Amino acid sequence: MTDLPGIVITGASGRMGQMLINTVLGSDKCKLVGAIERTGHDWVGRDVGEAMGGLTNGVIVTDDALEAFSRAQAVIDFTAPAATVAFSALAAQAHCVHVIGTTGMTDDDISKLGAAAHHCTIVRAGNMSLGVNLLTKITKMVAQALDDDFDIEVVEAHHNRKVDAPSGTALMLGEAAAEGRGVILADVSESGRDGITGARTRGDIGFSAIRGGDVVGEHDVMFLGDGERIILRHVASDRSLFAKGALKAALWGQTQKPGEYDMMDVLGL
Amino acid sequence: MTDLPGIVITGASGRMGQMLINTVLGSDKCKLVGAIERTGHDWVGRDVGEAMGGLTNGVIVTDDALEAFSRAQAVIDFTAPAATVAFSALAAQAHCVHVIGTTGMTDDDISKLGAAAHHCTIVRAGNMSLGVNLLTKITKMVAQALDDDFDIEVVEAHHNRKVDAPSGTALMLGEAAAEGRGVILADVSESGRDGITGARTRGDIGFSAIRGGDVVGEHDVMFLGDGERIILRHVASDRSLFAKGALKAALWGQTQKPGEYDMMDVLGL
Amino acid sequence: MTDLPGIVITGASGRMGQMLINTVLGSDKCKLVGAIERTGHDWVGRDVGEAMGGLTNGVIVTDDALEAFSRAQAVIDFTAPAATVAFSALAAQAHCVHVIGTTGMTDDDISKLGAAAHHCTIVRAGNMSLGVNLLTKITKMVAQALDDDFDIEVVEAHHNRKVDAPSGTALMLGEAAAEGRGVILADVSESGRDGITGARTRGDIGFSAIRGGDVVGEHDVMFLGDGERIILRHVASDRSLFAKGALKAALWGQTQKPGEYDMMDVLGL
Amino acid sequence: MTDLPGIVITGASGRMGQMLINTVLGSDKCKLVGAIERTGHDWVGRDVGEAMGGLTNGVIVTDDALEAFSRAQAVIDFTAPAATVAFSALAAQAHCVHVIGTTGMTDDDISKLGAAAHHCTIVRAGNMSLGVNLLTKITKMVAQALDDDFDIEVVEAHHNRKVDAPSGTALMLGEAAAEGRGVILADVSESGRDGITGARTRGDIGFSAIRGGDVVGEHDVMFLGDGERIILRHVASDRSLFAKGALKAALWGQTQKPGEYDMMDVLGL
Repeated sequence: MTDLPGIVITGASGRMGQMLINTVLGSDKCKLVGAIERTGHDWVGRDVGEAMGGLTNGVIVTDDALEAFSRAQAVIDFTAPAATVAFSALAAQAHCVHVIGTTGMTDDDISKLGAAAHHCTIVRAGNMSLGVNLLTKITKMVAQALDDDFDIEVVEAHHNRKVDAPSGTALMLGEAAAEGRGVILADVSESGRDGITGARTRGDIGFSAIRGGDVVGEHDVMFLGDGERIILRHVASDRSLFAKGALKAALWGQTQKPGEYDMMDVLGL
Repeated sequence: MTDLPGIVITGASGRMGQMLINTVLGSDKCKLVGAIERTGHDWVGRDVGEAMGGLTNGVIVTDDALEAFSRAQAVIDFTAPAATVAFSALAAQAHCVHVIGTTGMTDDDISKLGAAAHHCTIVRAGNMSLGVNLLTKITKMVAQALDDDFDIEVVEAHHNRKVDAPSGTALMLGEAAAEGRGVILADVSESGRDGITGARTRGDIGFSAIRGGDVVGEHDVMFLGDGERIILRHVASDRSLFAKGALKAALWGQTQKPGEYDMMDVLGL
Repeated sequence: MTDLPGIVITGASGRMGQMLINTVLGSDKCKLVGAIERTGHDWVGRDVGEAMGGLTNGVIVTDDALEAFSRAQAVIDFTAPAATVAFSALAAQAHCVHVIGTTGMTDDDISKLGAAAHHCTIVRAGNMSLGVNLLTKITKMVAQALDDDFDIEVVEAHHNRKVDAPSGTALMLGEAAAEGRGVILADVSESGRDGITGARTRGDIGFSAIRGGDVVGEHDVMFLGDGERIILRHVASDRSLFAKGALKAALWGQTQKPGEYDMMDVLGL
Repeated sequence: MTDLPGIVITGASGRMGQMLINTVLGSDKCKLVGAIERTGHDWVGRDVGEAMGGLTNGVIVTDDALEAFSRAQAVIDFTAPAATVAFSALAAQAHCVHVIGTTGMTDDDISKLGAAAHHCTIVRAGNMSLGVNLLTKITKMVAQALDDDFDIEVVEAHHNRKVDAPSGTALMLGEAAAEGRGVILADVSESGRDGITGARTRGDIGFSAIRGGDVVGEHDVMFLGDGERIILRHVASDRSLFAKGALKAALWGQTQKPGEYDMMDVLGL
């Protein structure tokens, strides 16, 4: 047991923080060695298990990130851009892997990570789901392998509270398809088909959005040819996917040289 | 063999006529006893098998519909409204079942069928596919059984030459769902979802249209609730469906009292 | 608010009891008015919300079922056969609807419910999921409407911890299909296809079992014909389905005459 | 038009030969310049279009393969091993691409192709469907990228006349998955699940076979994890796929150096 990599979670009291903590506690490939909250937060000093409303687990929430990082092999961080930039320097100092799921980072924020990446392994991704990253990769490959005798359609389904269409992930998949085919998505995108549309334009990439119930997120990339079809499908059934993906990145990072990586690297594609 | 019902096909030289003839010839539940073309057509007087570019089968194409009908138990008729009205009177006179797949009939045309229906069994439907008719029936039932905690979405896929969306069949299914729920489709229909749509409006019936390849026709009616979904799916993989449906109607009609029927009656729903 | 039907939950501390309580608390169509545990249980006398580890809600767990029932319009009961038989008499005395999800009841147990059913409405079902009950009903109808030109296949998917195949629900759907077709399932069932099987026997009902991941439960009933298919699909994504179904039954029961009912009645099929 | 590559089809009168001829005639990327039959066949000397029961197209069936090959850029050959070996030498002499779909070739036959491959481009594959080859490639990659936290299941559907299960293509996909994971398929294959099976064994690759109707061939490779799934799906709806794949190989071969290739090379993977 003592050989298992130790993980620290930042933003411990948040929804994502708690999900990350539960994911680490549930894994037999690592152990939880730290939980960080900002100075003044009422969780600081409490046992994190008890603070989350469950059993105690011996990990006391702390606001001393460097001290926690120095006892760990990896930190998983879904917080805010400024905090992430600061954590990055501390992770470099402590020589532990820094897995970043924080969104909304500017180019300036990202450039600041560069210095840290000389000293530690950073894995950063907008979407930590293994499956979606893998599907994106495959989509590009299949689009590259097939010419536009195959019509590409991206169909996604989400719960009835989602306010936009197509989903960000559908667009990411459409981008990958366009890239594979050597075209610009904006030039070939066809969304919201309705009424007298005329025949389908060769080379278009179509999008359809299904909304209803509590669907977590489902994406189909269809390549429709004469006499055959290939359909690449991803179904997310649990929002803990991001936590699982982040943990995989943390473990993968243990054996990497310092540098900046993304989920494609983690997947080995 | 002599006990099998004899079938006459009108409009023998047309694309649908030929498909009907092949369907009858391929069935072991009936026999082909006549093939009709209009006076002056160059198929009249020729063996219908040979005229279709295959082997002779002993049935000579004729323009004398009444004579042919009098030797038959049913006539299957996918022609034009005026011809169908005329055939209807002859079928009544010959006491044979009249299966009508002719489209574009006005209310006036339809009312003229009434007189014939006193003397013979008429089965008429806009869509002769067993599966689609059955799906329509079920869709109404399910919509009736479930309240609008279940979001209804109709998703259809067709080949890349189709010029309109949603498909006529998708709209028919949407109508059935609306009817089951006691609402007017036009009031709740949501088609062409794209951009910032806001959250889904409770009670809406959504439509999505996928276009690509050579897809014959696929329809999904989805009822998406919290924690569960029901999906009613129809896949057409062969355009001969209409011919098969018409033949089933012709055989079913053998044991019915005179009157007007549709495919729902044939299916016994 | 005072007009909402009041619901009592039996077996409050159990996994199903807690799920039922949360379902009632989350509904805007009813209110929780009682929670029952057996005499001596340490929840008796405590606020049920607090006992469940959450906020208090003012409902005190009691072992006096009759008193609680007399303040309620319905009791939802997923306990054990002997308890259910006893609750049944009390529900009849209190004139409240008794929804029974208890499994393992013998014919003798069931016959004892008869007396109660003279005085109150009883809804009892082995599977409270609306969707599965509806799918069962439709499966029978479709099997009845189509002859055995359509091959029937039941395909189910469940998580990797499930120890038997096909699932009980798959067999229930197969039974419904067989019943619709007027045959005995045992005579036509084909399961575990593997190796040199020979061509499919006409009239067979085939079963396939997919196992993997954390799939809650998915069932497809396929009717595969020449040129078309109908697929009836149910997807369960949340184990709370049973609680939701039971609540729907409780509300439906408010306007029924005394007697014994099942989920088919609730669905109005 | 004169710049389009000229194609010769061997075994012109056979079912596959005729399908290949129709595929070439229907393409705007090449032209038909020859059709070969064995000496003495009654098609030799006839216009191939007329011999196929359609319109004449000016290509006369010949038994002089070398003469035909010398006017062509590629020959597509789905005949028998001995004929293919002989054609191979002639194609090398004529410097035209040789696409081989012939099955049942022994290692000895295949080694004889080696000499020809010094002088011409040979593309040979057991399955010419683009989609299936691509799916096989992707399946291996995805299996490699994901560990056995993801359960692999291969589900296939075929028409009701198929006599064995799982299909050869399903096994090919299973092999690819096993290879990606670094295991031997025979050690982990689980087929024909039925009865009390116990929980799924980690690392197994499961197979399910659906049989019914006229399904041409559908294959799903499922990777089922906790909270997410990836499904790779191929649907064949037309038996002309092999002809299309062969033609693509013939066109691709125009720009290749002499040597032996397979469909993976054609797809550029």
